[in-house]
Amino acid sequence: MQLEEKLLNGDKRGCAKLISMVENNDKEAIDIIKKLYNHTGNAHIIGITGPPGGGKSTLTDRLAKALRKEDKKIGIIAIDPTSPFSGGSILGDRIRMNDLSLDKEVFIRSMGTRGYLGGLSKATQGAVKLLDIFGCDYIFIETVGVGQSEVDIVKTADTVIMVMVPGLGDDIQAIKAGVMEIGDIFAINKSDLMGASKTATEIKMMLDMSDNMERRPPVLQVTAIKNEGIDKLVDEIKNQMNYLEESNELYERRKNNAKTEIIKLVEEDIINLILKKNESIGMLDDIAHEVAIKVLDPYTAKDRVFNSIKEL
Amino acid sequence: MQLEEKLLNGDKRGCAKLISMVENNDKEAIDIIKKLYNHTGNAHIIGITGPPGGGKSTLTDRLAKALRKEDKKIGIIAIDPTSPFSGGSILGDRIRMNDLSLDKEVFIRSMGTRGYLGGLSKATQGAVKLLDIFGCDYIFIETVGVGQSEVDIVKTADTVIMVMVPGLGDDIQAIKAGVMEIGDIFAINKSDLMGASKTATEIKMMLDMSDNMERRPPVLQVTAIKNEGIDKLVDEIKNQMNYLEESNELYERRKNNAKTEIIKLVEEDIINLILKKNESIGMLDDIAHEVAIKVLDPYTAKDRVFNSIKEL
Repeated sequence: MQLEEKLLNGDKRGCAKLISMVENNDKEAIDIIKKLYNHTGNAHIIGITGPPGGGKSTLTDRLAKALRKEDKKIGIIAIDPTSPFSGGSILGDRIRMNDLSLDKEVFIRSMGTRGYLGGLSKATQGAVKLLDIFGCDYIFIETVGVGQSEVDIVKTADTVIMVMVPGLGDDIQAIKAGVMEIGDIFAINKSDLMGASKTATEIKMMLDMSDNMERRPPVLQVTAIKNEGIDKLVDEIKNQMNYLEESNELYERRKNNAKTEIIKLVEEDIINLILKKNESIGMLDDIAHEVAIKVLDPYTAKDRVFNSIKEL
Repeated sequence: MQLEEKLLNGDKRGCAKLISMVENNDKEAIDIIKKLYNHTGNAHIIGITGPPGGGKSTLTDRLAKALRKEDKKIGIIAIDPTSPFSGGSILGDRIRMNDLSLDKEVFIRSMGTRGYLGGLSKATQGAVKLLDIFGCDYIFIETVGVGQSEVDIVKTADTVIMVMVPGLGDDIQAIKAGVMEIGDIFAINKSDLMGASKTATEIKMMLDMSDNMERRPPVLQVTAIKNEGIDKLVDEIKNQMNYLEESNELYERRKNNAKTEIIKLVEEDIINLILKKNESIGMLDDIAHEVAIKVLDPYTAKDRVFNSIKEL
């Protein structure tokens, strides 16, 4: 059976193979996505992010299990830390969700930040499309780490769940401006801990102060490890999707995401073009040499390379 | 006095103003760098990075003080965490090095990861050039956070000091492949703690296994907070610079960095061009619309935008 058929027939290994191929920037895999692109758009893509230690993996695990009870097909992409200096917690994340991964209707993939030709963002976007064609009803993109680049990827989801923990206190102030705004739903995890209601109130107050929101995000208290509040969270995920569809916001978001994706793809092509041209005629080498010996500044050098692109 | 003269005359406020302008992608500041570019190249640019909790700021502080005794002029650029979910430690970093900052011959600047038109990398590269023209003998680029993007910036230094701590143990394995290789000098800080010699031995063993090194990096034990081992580290910094100059490696590195910088600048121009064109004729909007409604895939969309660039 061809990979294409395998994907359409919901063959997990075929899907896994294609995702690996996309990670390696394989033309065949890209061609399959191109061909089957009109099969995408059915999955609800959910980004899960938040400060470290919030229990994002556990929450994703519980959400997936709750949706499995409704016989939904699930994809989970865990984005590993951007930090090249990783702590010891990663291995724990990697071996998590074992029982889920045995489920034929659940596809789990962990994606690192290095070694992907074309970058993690491109690989993730490709994987999301493949899982969409594969027939997933829900695709979770979860940040394991909390770097800016991972958050930028999560922002491309239809819905973003911001996972917080009680007792953040002043730390809420430390969350950089603009990040709170990407949350469509706020889930305060570990709500069996002291201070959960206080944190909920604080977040609500912050959200009330923001005036550039179409829809005030719901703030929920959950305790993922005890499976408490998960059903309510699932309800809010569905409410959010209904809102997105009815308000045309889903179209707007997907259009904006398409713009970002196209620009990133163009960027990559340009770089490849410059590097390829450099291999043959050494254009970049020559110019970089002049910059290194200080007879040319990098800004003027850029203009030269930029102008030469039009002739390529 | 014009900003240009102020910079050449070592006026700290003039330099600070120009760095702010570069952060805002101000044409006047870029023009000044272009004009004075042949004044750059005299500073030894030193990147300081390593896992969190290694005491990188304190080490930078002590190195700067040691070099001040030799009457050297110092620039310090601290790159703030990429993580939008910051902990509470950042404020502590921001208010550090107060005594140093009063020194007329020391310029300290903290640079965040957001809000710079054109990106942090471009802003940092611009600031380094300004500090070089300003007359700094040593410019330290220090990662406060440990994200990949910060490490990529640090890699553009002439010399990279990798700051480790005793008892990393298995964590050394967790440091992603390729990161150890960027270290030209390894400083095991907090060497008054248990296990410092063991960590030194482990790092030396790792370095011995690597076969793609021109020069085996020295591994030093220091205790920055007690000012122990700093003079030896300063000696190794000078040895490294001598090695770079004598082996022509300095030219090779600067040429490679110029390549990277030029490509990034071209990328930025391309994006601006696409966005500008979109403002006038809505090209990107139209294509993104087709992608959003699934009649066009993003890869084919990319080809269309790419081809249109040549006509712009």
